[in-house]
Amino acid sequence: MIKAAILGANGYTGLELINILRSHSKVRLTQLISRSNEGAISEVYPSLTGSGLSFCRESDTVDADVVFCCLPHTLSAASAPALLKQGIKVIDLSSDFRYDDAALYESTYNVVHPHKELNAEAVYGMPELFRDKIKSARIVGNPGCYTTAAILPLFPLLEANAVDPDSIIIDAKSGISGAGRKAELGYIYTETAENFKAYGVTTHRHTTEIEEKLSIAAGKKISLTFTPHLLPVKRGILSTMYMTLNKGVTEADIAAVYAKKYGSERFVQILGAGNYPELKYVCGSNNIMIGFKADSKTGRLIVISALDNLTKGASGQAVQNMNIMFGFSESEGLDYYGKYI
Amino acid sequence: MIKAAILGANGYTGLELINILRSHSKVRLTQLISRSNEGAISEVYPSLTGSGLSFCRESDTVDADVVFCCLPHTLSAASAPALLKQGIKVIDLSSDFRYDDAALYESTYNVVHPHKELNAEAVYGMPELFRDKIKSARIVGNPGCYTTAAILPLFPLLEANAVDPDSIIIDAKSGISGAGRKAELGYIYTETAENFKAYGVTTHRHTTEIEEKLSIAAGKKISLTFTPHLLPVKRGILSTMYMTLNKGVTEADIAAVYAKKYGSERFVQILGAGNYPELKYVCGSNNIMIGFKADSKTGRLIVISALDNLTKGASGQAVQNMNIMFGFSESEGLDYYGKYI
Amino acid sequence: MIKAAILGANGYTGLELINILRSHSKVRLTQLISRSNEGAISEVYPSLTGSGLSFCRESDTVDADVVFCCLPHTLSAASAPALLKQGIKVIDLSSDFRYDDAALYESTYNVVHPHKELNAEAVYGMPELFRDKIKSARIVGNPGCYTTAAILPLFPLLEANAVDPDSIIIDAKSGISGAGRKAELGYIYTETAENFKAYGVTTHRHTTEIEEKLSIAAGKKISLTFTPHLLPVKRGILSTMYMTLNKGVTEADIAAVYAKKYGSERFVQILGAGNYPELKYVCGSNNIMIGFKADSKTGRLIVISALDNLTKGASGQAVQNMNIMFGFSESEGLDYYGKYI
Amino acid sequence: MIKAAILGANGYTGLELINILRSHSKVRLTQLISRSNEGAISEVYPSLTGSGLSFCRESDTVDADVVFCCLPHTLSAASAPALLKQGIKVIDLSSDFRYDDAALYESTYNVVHPHKELNAEAVYGMPELFRDKIKSARIVGNPGCYTTAAILPLFPLLEANAVDPDSIIIDAKSGISGAGRKAELGYIYTETAENFKAYGVTTHRHTTEIEEKLSIAAGKKISLTFTPHLLPVKRGILSTMYMTLNKGVTEADIAAVYAKKYGSERFVQILGAGNYPELKYVCGSNNIMIGFKADSKTGRLIVISALDNLTKGASGQAVQNMNIMFGFSESEGLDYYGKYI
Repeated sequence: MIKAAILGANGYTGLELINILRSHSKVRLTQLISRSNEGAISEVYPSLTGSGLSFCRESDTVDADVVFCCLPHTLSAASAPALLKQGIKVIDLSSDFRYDDAALYESTYNVVHPHKELNAEAVYGMPELFRDKIKSARIVGNPGCYTTAAILPLFPLLEANAVDPDSIIIDAKSGISGAGRKAELGYIYTETAENFKAYGVTTHRHTTEIEEKLSIAAGKKISLTFTPHLLPVKRGILSTMYMTLNKGVTEADIAAVYAKKYGSERFVQILGAGNYPELKYVCGSNNIMIGFKADSKTGRLIVISALDNLTKGASGQAVQNMNIMFGFSESEGLDYYGKYI
Repeated sequence: MIKAAILGANGYTGLELINILRSHSKVRLTQLISRSNEGAISEVYPSLTGSGLSFCRESDTVDADVVFCCLPHTLSAASAPALLKQGIKVIDLSSDFRYDDAALYESTYNVVHPHKELNAEAVYGMPELFRDKIKSARIVGNPGCYTTAAILPLFPLLEANAVDPDSIIIDAKSGISGAGRKAELGYIYTETAENFKAYGVTTHRHTTEIEEKLSIAAGKKISLTFTPHLLPVKRGILSTMYMTLNKGVTEADIAAVYAKKYGSERFVQILGAGNYPELKYVCGSNNIMIGFKADSKTGRLIVISALDNLTKGASGQAVQNMNIMFGFSESEGLDYYGKYI
Repeated sequence: MIKAAILGANGYTGLELINILRSHSKVRLTQLISRSNEGAISEVYPSLTGSGLSFCRESDTVDADVVFCCLPHTLSAASAPALLKQGIKVIDLSSDFRYDDAALYESTYNVVHPHKELNAEAVYGMPELFRDKIKSARIVGNPGCYTTAAILPLFPLLEANAVDPDSIIIDAKSGISGAGRKAELGYIYTETAENFKAYGVTTHRHTTEIEEKLSIAAGKKISLTFTPHLLPVKRGILSTMYMTLNKGVTEADIAAVYAKKYGSERFVQILGAGNYPELKYVCGSNNIMIGFKADSKTGRLIVISALDNLTKGASGQAVQNMNIMFGFSESEGLDYYGKYI
Repeated sequence: MIKAAILGANGYTGLELINILRSHSKVRLTQLISRSNEGAISEVYPSLTGSGLSFCRESDTVDADVVFCCLPHTLSAASAPALLKQGIKVIDLSSDFRYDDAALYESTYNVVHPHKELNAEAVYGMPELFRDKIKSARIVGNPGCYTTAAILPLFPLLEANAVDPDSIIIDAKSGISGAGRKAELGYIYTETAENFKAYGVTTHRHTTEIEEKLSIAAGKKISLTFTPHLLPVKRGILSTMYMTLNKGVTEADIAAVYAKKYGSERFVQILGAGNYPELKYVCGSNNIMIGFKADSKTGRLIVISALDNLTKGASGQAVQNMNIMFGFSESEGLDYYGKYI
């Protein structure tokens, strides 16, 4: 039984962490730290009426073996050193520790990294790709939601040299919880329901995070096109990805690449060719589901992934990382399926 | 560890039962019996890809200690005798075993009850009101969704003689999953989204079920007005109920009635006066949340309840009944909160 | 051809007025006055790209025969005297000129009325009830959305002494545009979609407006219960109303009352007994649709109305008032039906 | 004043035609022919209560100058000869007369074309591209919804040789009304709301229609990738399109190409670079809105279009074609803007 605290517990990723960790057999939630709220958490989220959980204010001493940082970027990294000094492991859900190259982080977010020395030791928290490093990490940079939906499906294809790394186009569609819990006009019901739009075309920050990680797989620096869209749903990301198959590579080859890479993964589900994921198949679970199709007419491969942005795209993956860091079963607290309705 | 089977497993209440029972520490799901489907359940609900669960056809021998019957009414009761003969307990989610008065069932549903002799021994599965009888029941008639949302809040008020039993008006609003998984024009997205309507005005079948149970509390036969509406949401029922306060009864008295009746109930949450439940506070949980307000201007009491129609309104309550029937902790497998988003 | 200006044109009622008046054969839109925006209206509402319309700042001289005031209450009334002095007619969409009794307005809104002397001459802009007075009015107080949905169906019943005036309960459900265009947490998609809630229970401001007008019909001061709810839809109000039938009054009598009162009204549609309106039948139109049912078991009458809160509940009714004030055909610019999908 | 009839008037495109044509100053609706319904249209669409419109059965004599055929493919073409013989012009909303190459139609739809001789004279009803031919056409094949959203933005780019014709990828997202009014499980609210999915990946029938028309612009036969998705909205298509810019072509060149081609078109709205359309900007109007961005990093052009699938994607464009065929102002009956909310 370990003790876990959440820093910045009042947002949606904090709420999702609370819901997961409440049912986790190896974890006791000790502190729900919030800068903007105090008192019973049911004042903010009445769904937790009866849970007995309360927010607490930040203090020098944190009573935890692991802290989940859900603060905005730069604030999040700024909190890390004090935690590490107390021997507490840090799982950071902001972008602060996601980049290998701190300079790329800085140019992407247009800030100075508060702790470059820590960034050097931080591990990118995508278990299916970097499990071994996560085991011994003190700091994990938990991946972004769009980036998880793109990197997990594309990494093995580039690694296997199955597709042209310069041909990648990612057309991604996200639910509105991806924007967090913000009172902005652009997110009110009357402006978003029955609507759909692209945004951040060619400029979205997740682009560089995706490019950096896929460059590892490709063995060379790659550039790609990433277009996010805003879906009128609460949760979920579905990404449709287009790329050119390398010469001679068949649909069966792609199936084999995925089977080899992810065949024994609990949270990656590869569908048979011609079957495609839907949001309702994954939302409410920590699964990413991947479908694909080779199009002989154009020589392209189409890959479609779906995940729940608050679970596999954020808090679920964070708990998966925690499980690895503390030697628990990787699916502990996460062993459920999509809710479908 | 007991063995549980589901009869009619391919509908939404069946799916909800599967999702709950998969995580139940005392239950092994042995058979998912379907008349219309066979093979992997993931063919029907791809969200369950990787679960290893399959449908099976009905057979004479059912391998279970308890069977959840999710068949249409009359078919459901027809299945019971053979199960009971094998020593299997029956939790029936249809309306077949909900009525004390089989004649009222017959006139309401315009059918002949297939097994009146069993109806006589069946117990109404509303744990907070009939827990003791449920403990020793062989057959439980699991309540309807609208009826749970109405009876739990109103029963104690009538029992305490706090309100006029002839003044009750129930204005209920339900999500679309209440209609089941049916390919009907009236339920397609383009006809229901951004829409709202009343239906079954003065004629809805749940009216007599509510009246029969509330008559027990009132100690006399009561008639009430019940108006269901169709909300453009997947899950959830919110019922706004109006009644006349008996002379001298105050808001504080109402609070006391509820505290006494439900103060130690895990799944009934009474809000302080002036606070009201919302669907997002309860959906995804087995909770019913109740708020109320006395209006001195008109002498009326307004009571508002909310629950998830597939959980407390159907499958969650069914599992709660099972827990009682088998001596498990009543919240086993059900100890989670509303998902909020 | 008259000239019309809109004061406070950047909200949803302003937008709806623009869309209606653009197609009105007798009106030229001269000024779209906004305190918070300037420049092309397509900067705020890109749907109007190509319309050539622009916001202008408030100035002393308004170039119009009629001004639609869409400002918040008290600000709206404050603008009226200067407009009237210039010979401009005023249709006020705020609550400032809705009450006969300025003191009731003041206690309801907890403000001092800026121009009680004007309130005395203002006419309540509900054409089907007060058409004659509207014809010659200089100031019209355009009714609230909830109030239109309640008063039009209930007024004739009270006038005809068909129902008990002390028995009225209004359970109303409104789309989110009723809250205006506000960046508040409670209105963002993730907090409202798939949700439903009551609010303002016994305290909503529209209650006194409804009571004042229905007291005229009843010939005595009445009190009623009004409970608004927030529907996850953009537009529309559906109100389910409960009352006790007076002795001997039949369903056929109710039909006759409505036929007599509204039989020749273009915008009031009375359905046959047992048929009920839905939001999709009226949204996008200036119609209010009314269904009803007498319940012999309880002696109650159930009346259900539906309208589009931005049209018949606000801007459409305002244009209907304008048509009457200027002697145009009452349906000019408003002669369309609900959009259904 | 001409007479118009609708064949297959009971579906959503029929309903949209009725709503548009009711307000069209040059048209009288004479017959609403339905094979599955008769009697008042308000029985099917109660939104039209009070309109006085009724369905009629098919008969040998049609009283019309123009007939809009909204029948399923092959049935639609089968109706054409008898109409033409009576001197009636035909605007066909099915796919029967959309293809220049009848064999391509036959292989795409896996049917035999009922009237190849008529197909040869039919004109593709996309006014902005084929206006002159439409003027004198007897039969117009009204384009598909996805195809309009793709062809209008892409045609001028290929015509101007600005992009590589072999690089085109169309990622399209459609509202559910695109599927028509069908009682299928896949379209009910509980299966579609809060969901999102791709479908018909590499196999959707609109692909060949798009390829055939764009091949005209490219001056060579082209193949492209088209992936449709199902959005949880009632109306609207948003298409995100990716292609490689030809050498030396700049974003300014693209703007110039569009300005030249569509600068004087009423229904095509080109946004400045970096601005993108949203569904709420166009739904409820006959407009298509187009935004674009050149990405120097990858050398790609991203083009995003949005339209209302029932208006510019079907019935609105059909009326636009009628206006051209009969010499009316092209925007008659269609001169409104997107409804935004």
